Amino acid sequence: MFYGVDLTSRLMLGTAQYPSPQVLLEAIEASGAEVITVSLRREGAAGGAFRALLAKSRCRLLPNTAGCHTVREAVTTARMAREVFGTSWIKLEVIGHADTLQPDPFALVEAARVLCAEGFDVFPYTTEDLIVGEKLLEAGCKVLMPWGAPIGSGQGLRNLAGLRSMRAHFPDVPLVVDAGIGAPSQAAQAMELGFDAVLLNTAVAKAVDPVGMARAFGHAIQAGQEGFVAGLMPERDMASVSTPVFGLAELA
Amino acid sequence: MFYGVDLTSRLMLGTAQYPSPQVLLEAIEASGAEVITVSLRREGAAGGAFRALLAKSRCRLLPNTAGCHTVREAVTTARMAREVFGTSWIKLEVIGHADTLQPDPFALVEAARVLCAEGFDVFPYTTEDLIVGEKLLEAGCKVLMPWGAPIGSGQGLRNLAGLRSMRAHFPDVPLVVDAGIGAPSQAAQAMELGFDAVLLNTAVAKAVDPVGMARAFGHAIQAGQEGFVAGLMPERDMASVSTPVFGLAELA
Amino acid sequence: MFYGVDLTSRLMLGTAQYPSPQVLLEAIEASGAEVITVSLRREGAAGGAFRALLAKSRCRLLPNTAGCHTVREAVTTARMAREVFGTSWIKLEVIGHADTLQPDPFALVEAARVLCAEGFDVFPYTTEDLIVGEKLLEAGCKVLMPWGAPIGSGQGLRNLAGLRSMRAHFPDVPLVVDAGIGAPSQAAQAMELGFDAVLLNTAVAKAVDPVGMARAFGHAIQAGQEGFVAGLMPERDMASVSTPVFGLAELA
Amino acid sequence: MFYGVDLTSRLMLGTAQYPSPQVLLEAIEASGAEVITVSLRREGAAGGAFRALLAKSRCRLLPNTAGCHTVREAVTTARMAREVFGTSWIKLEVIGHADTLQPDPFALVEAARVLCAEGFDVFPYTTEDLIVGEKLLEAGCKVLMPWGAPIGSGQGLRNLAGLRSMRAHFPDVPLVVDAGIGAPSQAAQAMELGFDAVLLNTAVAKAVDPVGMARAFGHAIQAGQEGFVAGLMPERDMASVSTPVFGLAELA
Repeated sequence: MFYGVDLTSRLMLGTAQYPSPQVLLEAIEASGAEVITVSLRREGAAGGAFRALLAKSRCRLLPNTAGCHTVREAVTTARMAREVFGTSWIKLEVIGHADTLQPDPFALVEAARVLCAEGFDVFPYTTEDLIVGEKLLEAGCKVLMPWGAPIGSGQGLRNLAGLRSMRAHFPDVPLVVDAGIGAPSQAAQAMELGFDAVLLNTAVAKAVDPVGMARAFGHAIQAGQEGFVAGLMPERDMASVSTPVFGLAELA
Repeated sequence: MFYGVDLTSRLMLGTAQYPSPQVLLEAIEASGAEVITVSLRREGAAGGAFRALLAKSRCRLLPNTAGCHTVREAVTTARMAREVFGTSWIKLEVIGHADTLQPDPFALVEAARVLCAEGFDVFPYTTEDLIVGEKLLEAGCKVLMPWGAPIGSGQGLRNLAGLRSMRAHFPDVPLVVDAGIGAPSQAAQAMELGFDAVLLNTAVAKAVDPVGMARAFGHAIQAGQEGFVAGLMPERDMASVSTPVFGLAELA
Repeated sequence: MFYGVDLTSRLMLGTAQYPSPQVLLEAIEASGAEVITVSLRREGAAGGAFRALLAKSRCRLLPNTAGCHTVREAVTTARMAREVFGTSWIKLEVIGHADTLQPDPFALVEAARVLCAEGFDVFPYTTEDLIVGEKLLEAGCKVLMPWGAPIGSGQGLRNLAGLRSMRAHFPDVPLVVDAGIGAPSQAAQAMELGFDAVLLNTAVAKAVDPVGMARAFGHAIQAGQEGFVAGLMPERDMASVSTPVFGLAELA
Repeated sequence: MFYGVDLTSRLMLGTAQYPSPQVLLEAIEASGAEVITVSLRREGAAGGAFRALLAKSRCRLLPNTAGCHTVREAVTTARMAREVFGTSWIKLEVIGHADTLQPDPFALVEAARVLCAEGFDVFPYTTEDLIVGEKLLEAGCKVLMPWGAPIGSGQGLRNLAGLRSMRAHFPDVPLVVDAGIGAPSQAAQAMELGFDAVLLNTAVAKAVDPVGMARAFGHAIQAGQEGFVAGLMPERDMASVSTPVFGLAELA
């Protein structure tokens, strides 16, 4: 449950960097996503047309504050997004480092506090830091979105132990891996760890065939979720026989 | 193409170790597999019943020589399997090491030579060794099945570089990762490397919910295949902006 | 240079958990460490004796605030440590999470600000978070001590990409990997990445033979440092011939 | 014990690809190696001079059959090496794949059988394959030299689980990791797994400073060996307190 909303598909898809609006729409459709993120900052002269386009997808919109580097910028952007998109949902990004696009934990917590107090449903883009996670919950967030790796890097889950630790530490909080995913198998892995959803953009938008890749991620996230629910076998150090052998003597 | 047969689903499923025949049938169905492996050695008093059961699945049968440790045992088992199951397909296992169930490359090549000469369509369970692979092709095999990890270990693709190297070295040979897969994400990863199929048993049969896990693997393998075809983004050392930022000045 | 002090050995050794004071002294000697950390909180009735013991090692002392969970606790402990040990060096730990002993980035930065203003030379135990690192530098720290993994876990460098990124982002700041190192090879790896030192405790104190392990780590850190300076070869995807072959024809 | 010879230093060093003979000699000296490998095929007009050079190092020579692709080539080269270098030691390489320089397990075992029968002390360059290892022991080898990764790749121990399995399977056979090591930490890791020695060439010869790198590897291998002997701590999933906290109440 993400702020009272239950989702069948656990893939959230970004809408930037696609080769064309048509490809974007087809990719959303192929992915099965029910939530798409959208940057307010694409809104200008062409904003109305883009909004009309996204409305066709019939997905729930999750506006984001991508590109914001300060509390003030992020809060202002969130408020504008609420008006423009008519939703209290906001993916809160406050970027601390221009190269890695690492979130700034200090500004993030402060902005979350302001926005939660104003009634926003905040989806904070954060790191796997447990203490930052706790502060975000104290600020009023009911979802956490740790990164898998730096935005656009495609490195996958680069701190696997840290993400496992986060899942264990917040057993009842919806956790979404956001950023860094480059391949369907990595998205499946996040779900197998027990994460509740995966948010993607670059890996789909920049694929040779974005529509085919969107479909691939849709299946991968479904696979990981089903695998988690079905109970993965434990890894073993030594091999064991998987085919039981009956009647060995018969062949002697 | 596996010996002239084209498969839609690239999951091959083993039939051992399931809690009940009914669960096995449902798992096969849920997985979408079109090929199932079966050990001749389960055939005894109950053999007929088990064969009748498998017939219900309408899958193509791939009999195996699981549990064989010598050329003679494997060849004899293969011949019996051909009669019993009425197929020239044979998954050739010649186990060299009792703990890891590692194939014996020497006996494997020799048995493959004998069986290919007798008209079998041999699917050899082998390691990622390139030279052993070449010898198997020389012997007449038209498919290779390298292990991901020891049978039943669930370790996944433990020699990733070796498997990549194998894919590059045999660009035109159908390659199936056989053994060692423990989680859907690992199966997806194999397909993303360009492998043609994945053969599984323990990870499904020993899951808490085998039917749910079979479905998960079906989706994962589809996801990996679709991802490979759609062209994965390259991994990057440094992050790059994934949401383009327009109109930044408007917010200043 | 660590606050104006140049060190030959880049191993810093903790003094807790040893089987006996004698073993501790021998381990320090065998390791070649020139800096040892010590917890003020061991100081009680037996404090004087322990101080006398450490004095024998002729190492520079780096008192720590281990076990502190708040700014107030950490600052108070640091002040007492300065009096008791007669040094302005302080390893600042403000623990945020009882299980993983993760630092609390918020309290850490605040405590660092207070202590730097009071003239302490602060060695902050932090994560690989770049923004937290920047805040610590702004607070006046001239050294950063990111964790390799949770204290006492022996997992090594669990977020390798994050540590690499930190080294690249702070090229002129002395960086010490502190916590999580379990094996000499992991300490060597940290130095090969260009880190300036490694701080250890559990891996030595809890070894079967702490003195032998201290010696091993001393050699490993030297090896990693020498390797970094000598310029590591790049990793290659494909193999290349390492033994040049002359006169092949002679053997034909 | 390597064929009755006990070695203090567990580093074996290759002699190819150095910028100059002088650098080679200094690198050998700095590394502390007591065994150096040498290719017969460098022996031509300049062979005598090169032999004289190596004699200065006072190391035991381990001639190799680098560049040989067939049993006949390898056996002929080994016989010539025995005459030229006056030693029954031979590092047996029979290359099966030109790109990865993977050993050919079939030709390797056959050549080993011939050479052992002729009284050679064979050091076979092999893979981590357990069955190939067993065949080499049956052929008369008393040492095995599995690769870490393809020759010259610097990838380190790319099949860690396979190498662990090999160590466990051959507890009483001297095992030397040969090829693929690119960094001192990787050599230390091999020794920590319980391997008996490491053979290197490219990583030293192609370093920016080969002499410094040779020293680094010497220390790393010593560190790994000492660490193995001293008993590594087990890795833990969750952190535990490494600094015991006494007198917490005093600070409250």
